[in-house]
Amino acid sequence: MTQQYPTSLGTSDADTITLLGQNLADDLMGKVGFGELTLWMVTQRRPTQSEVRVFEAVLVALADHGFTPTAIAARLTYLSAPDSLQGALAAGLLGGGSRFLGVTEDAGQFLAGVLAEADEIPVDDAGYDALALAAVQRARAARKFVPGLGHPVHKVRDPRTPVLIAIADEEGLRGPHLRLFEAIGRVHPQVLGRTLPLNGAGTCGAVLADLGLPLSLLRGFALLARAAGLLGQLAEEQRTPIANDIYMSVDRNATYITPK
Amino acid sequence: MTQQYPTSLGTSDADTITLLGQNLADDLMGKVGFGELTLWMVTQRRPTQSEVRVFEAVLVALADHGFTPTAIAARLTYLSAPDSLQGALAAGLLGGGSRFLGVTEDAGQFLAGVLAEADEIPVDDAGYDALALAAVQRARAARKFVPGLGHPVHKVRDPRTPVLIAIADEEGLRGPHLRLFEAIGRVHPQVLGRTLPLNGAGTCGAVLADLGLPLSLLRGFALLARAAGLLGQLAEEQRTPIANDIYMSVDRNATYITPK
Amino acid sequence: MTQQYPTSLGTSDADTITLLGQNLADDLMGKVGFGELTLWMVTQRRPTQSEVRVFEAVLVALADHGFTPTAIAARLTYLSAPDSLQGALAAGLLGGGSRFLGVTEDAGQFLAGVLAEADEIPVDDAGYDALALAAVQRARAARKFVPGLGHPVHKVRDPRTPVLIAIADEEGLRGPHLRLFEAIGRVHPQVLGRTLPLNGAGTCGAVLADLGLPLSLLRGFALLARAAGLLGQLAEEQRTPIANDIYMSVDRNATYITPK
Amino acid sequence: MTQQYPTSLGTSDADTITLLGQNLADDLMGKVGFGELTLWMVTQRRPTQSEVRVFEAVLVALADHGFTPTAIAARLTYLSAPDSLQGALAAGLLGGGSRFLGVTEDAGQFLAGVLAEADEIPVDDAGYDALALAAVQRARAARKFVPGLGHPVHKVRDPRTPVLIAIADEEGLRGPHLRLFEAIGRVHPQVLGRTLPLNGAGTCGAVLADLGLPLSLLRGFALLARAAGLLGQLAEEQRTPIANDIYMSVDRNATYITPK
Repeated sequence: MTQQYPTSLGTSDADTITLLGQNLADDLMGKVGFGELTLWMVTQRRPTQSEVRVFEAVLVALADHGFTPTAIAARLTYLSAPDSLQGALAAGLLGGGSRFLGVTEDAGQFLAGVLAEADEIPVDDAGYDALALAAVQRARAARKFVPGLGHPVHKVRDPRTPVLIAIADEEGLRGPHLRLFEAIGRVHPQVLGRTLPLNGAGTCGAVLADLGLPLSLLRGFALLARAAGLLGQLAEEQRTPIANDIYMSVDRNATYITPK
Repeated sequence: MTQQYPTSLGTSDADTITLLGQNLADDLMGKVGFGELTLWMVTQRRPTQSEVRVFEAVLVALADHGFTPTAIAARLTYLSAPDSLQGALAAGLLGGGSRFLGVTEDAGQFLAGVLAEADEIPVDDAGYDALALAAVQRARAARKFVPGLGHPVHKVRDPRTPVLIAIADEEGLRGPHLRLFEAIGRVHPQVLGRTLPLNGAGTCGAVLADLGLPLSLLRGFALLARAAGLLGQLAEEQRTPIANDIYMSVDRNATYITPK
Repeated sequence: MTQQYPTSLGTSDADTITLLGQNLADDLMGKVGFGELTLWMVTQRRPTQSEVRVFEAVLVALADHGFTPTAIAARLTYLSAPDSLQGALAAGLLGGGSRFLGVTEDAGQFLAGVLAEADEIPVDDAGYDALALAAVQRARAARKFVPGLGHPVHKVRDPRTPVLIAIADEEGLRGPHLRLFEAIGRVHPQVLGRTLPLNGAGTCGAVLADLGLPLSLLRGFALLARAAGLLGQLAEEQRTPIANDIYMSVDRNATYITPK
Repeated sequence: MTQQYPTSLGTSDADTITLLGQNLADDLMGKVGFGELTLWMVTQRRPTQSEVRVFEAVLVALADHGFTPTAIAARLTYLSAPDSLQGALAAGLLGGGSRFLGVTEDAGQFLAGVLAEADEIPVDDAGYDALALAAVQRARAARKFVPGLGHPVHKVRDPRTPVLIAIADEEGLRGPHLRLFEAIGRVHPQVLGRTLPLNGAGTCGAVLADLGLPLSLLRGFALLARAAGLLGQLAEEQRTPIANDIYMSVDRNATYITPK
């Protein structure tokens, strides 16, 4: 028997393009926003406008952070291979791994894990605090890091965090992952002995998990946001090139050490 | 003197994150959509809501086309390296080169080139038809391909094309690139001796060029749209895996030919 | 103070190119083989001819395995973007993650970990057997997988394993990692209750670790070998294209499931 | 009828692994070098030892050039995503495009094109000089660049060029592409009005073309050489990290320009 490959995304025939069971041209283009379509493709359920607003706030929060290693790598790759924009974009995304973009997914996974093991979902802040306290204590005992705590630049407060919480709250989407994350923000000092801010990337992870997005794909949304940011970086590189200066500043300041 | 690196995108200090000169948390998150921010980052000018609607219609048009080679490559890469979602996404985008995603950029470049060489921008359809006729004749004389004409599946009409034109028209953004492209659709049969449809990817290129986006970055918007589509493909691969079946169907049907 | 960037690899001035402290043109080209140079660049120590022979045997063992998911992804990417060979190669390498290429590194890391925790390095097979037995028992108790055991196709014996052991032995480089791995091959049946072959990728990891290569880079040698194999695949794709047939066979056998 | 996929590279069954029609374990491992296998996989013809020596000299010549944009991009990507070595390697290779690695392929293609259009292959230097002169004049008339001429650092002489010519000569492989390239070195001053060195990358292209390698794959050999160099760079980054210092030096010297 011939292998069959099921899908519910795109397909087409001579006259029609279908996406998610919809007529792409008649029902989606001009009627559905890009963030809305992204959510729909991932969950295969049409999102509400509240979900779209929260989701796009996360994408906006993660789109660009200036001269990150990934932005620099994309610009250098574009310098070397200007004929292949896709290569520069891919090179920038390949830095979206555990260290710089991973917090979003790690936080979502951590929170979901704690909730999955809880006997019941708390009904008030006191309940979330108790759950959070046990989770932070368990992490500390296992010498594990609680993802989403602390930031190299925003040492006291990450400005994105309260705004994301407020937007989720306005839209009725401040769910258990985010409430647990907020509780971690309240209780961790009594375990760790110092107060760390809830960072924006971790908050994004909590919010995305509350949207019901697949936990093992959370990093993907940070990557999508970053893809847009990298287009901004590459457009700026076209207007005001700096990649060659970066290259020269490294090359010129090389200190050669003859191996023994 | 120390090298300086100018930028107008992201920057941050302990309390504030700035993007495009705006306060990210207070002025952008929850207030600016993801497509809107993308346009803004690339052009460094805040787009109008009309521009955003047209832009997002293009992204929606290009997001997913089912089991394209790039979607299959992303799924196979995810099968091999499930720990590295960024690698699967990058592998999928790397297929966004000349053949499958290049038409958008090629069409925009072609149309902009014809307009740049025109003595004046036409004022009516007759003027566009004359300009288009000369351009198609020149391309044919040089044995060059007119980008955006023809489609392997939509042999008579690409359903995205009239919808994109209508949306651009509704928003007052049916500019010279798109009008020239439409004229090519009208006049090419008298040069080429057969009637080909204006394809959707080419129409997207005309529309993006009319939005004033950098021509050498047009492929980038197709890549951004595709990044969202690839997240949909990878989410589906998590739910309903097919990559291993594809691999097996190739491996099992290999015919080994001993080299001489 | 200006940042300085130390390196012992390549540098050049108007007249001379230096690599590893050597004159590239006069002392390396034509005098040092490619595998030899690779080892030298990674370890910054000139390898012996025995080390080179063992290293190249590993690269030969890992270079190509036919229609793997990575080979298929590279061919599909080349189909989509034939103007960007680097993209096709990169797409193929991006599948070199935990599942298909990871065994080499995982095995090396596992063996090195066991040896690091041992009180002393064994002096005979009995000593290695005892160490291996304890390690396999510990792994089983922790419900962890012993990397390098078992193979989906070579269920009884991986033909590369005895040959790699023999070559290492001939060259006086059958060191503690490989001897421990061989001991795992002898003792694991009494813990796991069934006999699995030592696979070739795991044996490569043991051999590379015995060469003193950085454990966290072992995957990199599998990737280098695979880069050569992918060139073979892409050369064959140029001569006898199959990527479009693969794409068509997937696309044609898609079963569309309308989402609810 | 089921699709069949022909191949002459790798295949395996329960007991045997076959590569290029050979028994991998018995006939290749330990008996065939890595460069030799690479040539064999690409051409499907077993190379001579002379061909292997010339080929490996090219790979050695191209392996590393210090802090190139691609090396920096690989290091920055490794900093961001240390869990995914394949991503760092891929990011480095993605810079292997038209500008920095493209000369090798461009030169090979240019020389092959000139030879293909020649009435007959010259028999002496005078014949090559005449062919070269016409080719350089044609390129200049078309305002095209002759690939392989000139180098930003080696303004008078690229030290790799005479060594590659000597090695090819020693091995009886100084063929028409290289002889034509040498002739271009002799005659171009009378057309261009200034004397440029034949660069190493271009010479490599001539040599690889004389080896009979596919012209559209020449960039691939530069990428393979670079993959080894990138492993050296990443090993050095593990021992003596500089990527974070590069990132910091860019980020700290950013000048923020508020967009209008």
